[in-house]
Amino acid sequence: MSSGRQTSAERIYGRDLEVGRVYQLSEFVMTRAELIDFALKWDPQGFHIDQQVADDGPYVGLIASGAHTFAVMQRLSVLDVYDHWAVIAGKGVSDVAFLRPVRPDDVLTGTLTVVEATSDDRNRTLVVVDSELTVAGRPVLRARVSSYVHATPAV
Amino acid sequence: MSSGRQTSAERIYGRDLEVGRVYQLSEFVMTRAELIDFALKWDPQGFHIDQQVADDGPYVGLIASGAHTFAVMQRLSVLDVYDHWAVIAGKGVSDVAFLRPVRPDDVLTGTLTVVEATSDDRNRTLVVVDSELTVAGRPVLRARVSSYVHATPAV
Repeated sequence: MSSGRQTSAERIYGRDLEVGRVYQLSEFVMTRAELIDFALKWDPQGFHIDQQVADDGPYVGLIASGAHTFAVMQRLSVLDVYDHWAVIAGKGVSDVAFLRPVRPDDVLTGTLTVVEATSDDRNRTLVVVDSELTVAGRPVLRARVSSYVHATPAV
Repeated sequence: MSSGRQTSAERIYGRDLEVGRVYQLSEFVMTRAELIDFALKWDPQGFHIDQQVADDGPYVGLIASGAHTFAVMQRLSVLDVYDHWAVIAGKGVSDVAFLRPVRPDDVLTGTLTVVEATSDDRNRTLVVVDSELTVAGRPVLRARVSSYVHATPAV
């Protein structure tokens, strides 16, 4: 589960990353119980945690916290993609867009597309990916995520 | 805790929001146990969940997932600010920057500054805030967050 448990030989380095490559993410089911639990801790607004408030609101029903959908994106990205890369650390995220509400029992999946991979003279590769999560084929979240990856094993 | 449980009379509407106003956020202690628990679920990379991998890595010690720090920002923003506003829903987040690593036992706090409040002809106000989280006075996360708020109680 941890990239740290992989040996160097198994890992993908910055030098090997191809701009334009698209990674398919696996699926995550947003259960009603988890939607509410996450929001109670991290985003306790009525339309995330209170069925009655949500039913009376503009979305007519509970919707997931954007912080939750963002966390789902990170989970799928790590398990399916970053876990195989020699990641140093995240750098930043730009242009996070919540395009449609995510509701109980929605099945989230998506893609991650490499849009930039630039190595520097400190053996680091700045990797920029466009992430998109979808529900039933329609986008719910887009974000551009930048990370540093070891360019080669010689660190 | 839920904005939905407040009556209209207690809530702040878009027409009342002042550009330039700065809200002080309260404090959140990032315990080691919670840092690891969150990352095991949402961001299971070695430098977030495995002390040995983290100690051997570039940050020399465990660091929090950016998704976790982002969730802390949302929690403090909701409890201290948004819970008092007639929020319709979040719209998006731009320019999330992870400026410094967040480590076990760090105490996070920060500010939220209203930088735009523009009402439309559907009784909605688009509110843009600059959020900053700090540890010991130094910024660790910045983000620009956009939300829709009811402009007036007449919805």
